[in-house]
Amino acid sequence: MIIIAERINGMFTNVKQAIADKDKKVIQELARKQTEAGATYLDVNVGTAAADQAGTMQWLVETIQETCATPLSLDSQKPDVIAAGLKVINAENGVILNSTPLNKKTDEEIFDKYMEMADQAGPKACIITLTMDKNGVPQDVDTRVAIAADIISKAMEKGFDSQRLFVDPIILPVKVPNAQVQPGNILSAMDQIRYLSEPAPHMTIGLSNLSQGATERSLINRVFLAMGISRGLDSAIVDVLDEKLMNVLATAEMLMNKQIYSDSFLKVYASMNE
Amino acid sequence: MIIIAERINGMFTNVKQAIADKDKKVIQELARKQTEAGATYLDVNVGTAAADQAGTMQWLVETIQETCATPLSLDSQKPDVIAAGLKVINAENGVILNSTPLNKKTDEEIFDKYMEMADQAGPKACIITLTMDKNGVPQDVDTRVAIAADIISKAMEKGFDSQRLFVDPIILPVKVPNAQVQPGNILSAMDQIRYLSEPAPHMTIGLSNLSQGATERSLINRVFLAMGISRGLDSAIVDVLDEKLMNVLATAEMLMNKQIYSDSFLKVYASMNE
Repeated sequence: MIIIAERINGMFTNVKQAIADKDKKVIQELARKQTEAGATYLDVNVGTAAADQAGTMQWLVETIQETCATPLSLDSQKPDVIAAGLKVINAENGVILNSTPLNKKTDEEIFDKYMEMADQAGPKACIITLTMDKNGVPQDVDTRVAIAADIISKAMEKGFDSQRLFVDPIILPVKVPNAQVQPGNILSAMDQIRYLSEPAPHMTIGLSNLSQGATERSLINRVFLAMGISRGLDSAIVDVLDEKLMNVLATAEMLMNKQIYSDSFLKVYASMNE
Repeated sequence: MIIIAERINGMFTNVKQAIADKDKKVIQELARKQTEAGATYLDVNVGTAAADQAGTMQWLVETIQETCATPLSLDSQKPDVIAAGLKVINAENGVILNSTPLNKKTDEEIFDKYMEMADQAGPKACIITLTMDKNGVPQDVDTRVAIAADIISKAMEKGFDSQRLFVDPIILPVKVPNAQVQPGNILSAMDQIRYLSEPAPHMTIGLSNLSQGATERSLINRVFLAMGISRGLDSAIVDVLDEKLMNVLATAEMLMNKQIYSDSFLKVYASMNE
């Protein structure tokens, strides 16, 4: 499982404050803790508070790189902010451009630009592509799959390896009225997306978004993560510090035969990711 | 979700002892507690220790019926033991014959006999049918589905409603060598079995069997239950007294849009089943 750790995000109070104070310690501790907890990538999101988003992204990237070599996922809806991060990044071990913009303009031109940015960053640079188009986030299964197919076909045309794509079918909060059919739709979309190319594109979700505003957040996240992994979900943006979630992740991988059962399978999984 | 509570089973030490001592209190308390915890049916299994299995089944049925009206699932691999239970049961609210024998002889003749027994017990009497045949438990997806299709077609021929069938794809312990591909196979089989008839047959599993002999039993059961519910699993034989498991069940049902989200969805689900 490719685990993208979500905690370095300006939406969290302590990160927002650290950004305002230019307090490296808070950021570096989060980077270390999340790496130890099993993060494959550290997501970096400046949030909305910082006036200079591009500069803040660069400060965060440099601050994290001073303390650990875990690859980063540069998280912004603004291509310029991602581009700023890429200028100062060490992308030798990889980087994720997270994600194609959520502004009803993920048309060909913008996706082409993202593929160019990724190619410039290096051969391991990946892109999270949202299954949305000019009409917004689709509500049904078929449109999600059709957009994913379109993304993969455009990537193939440009010679951009499908293994460098993380298709994100966009999970909405289950608490939003009329959104309750969405978790099932997303699972059905996953069933199809994983067969769109060979090898399959990666699939990822911003898991915590599902439980936004809900009670029992960790429980809701855990249950859906198990369901998703059984459909071929091989990546997720998660709270890697949620130990119960990480145990569910390890158990789901074991049950889907991605990890061998042993009596200490939870510990084995944890140590594999250190 | 049709929840079949597993605890009244002679394989558990306290039940075995209660059977030996003809101690009604232990059995009746388990019946009450499991009903309060959300059991739709109470499974009744005499275990292997009792010399007179048919008589023990009758004593258990009568003992439980003295204290509560929750319908029962008569659990035995011996048709005669189930038949004995049926003689003394009040099947007005339903009963499950659990299950077609696990003795490599679930051929037409035996299944016919089970349908007759169920019809004699009343219009609400159901049968758990295992997806196995004379060759034993199939290891692959296709044979499981083919056997399920055969079961449903035989039921249709006899005018036995598919809604009175619970197809059990037989889950094996994940700890058994070479069995680790099975959970994935069973989920894939479920994807197909649910489309074999309209309305779909019920699907059930003996969930605890999955974690037999393993560490982290409840965690393994919880994760697989979530996966199963996302594939249309609408029944399971479970430890209904495992509160964490029941919370996962309620959450999975909510995420699959079988229950509306509210901030107190866990409590709402629990009270619905009282």
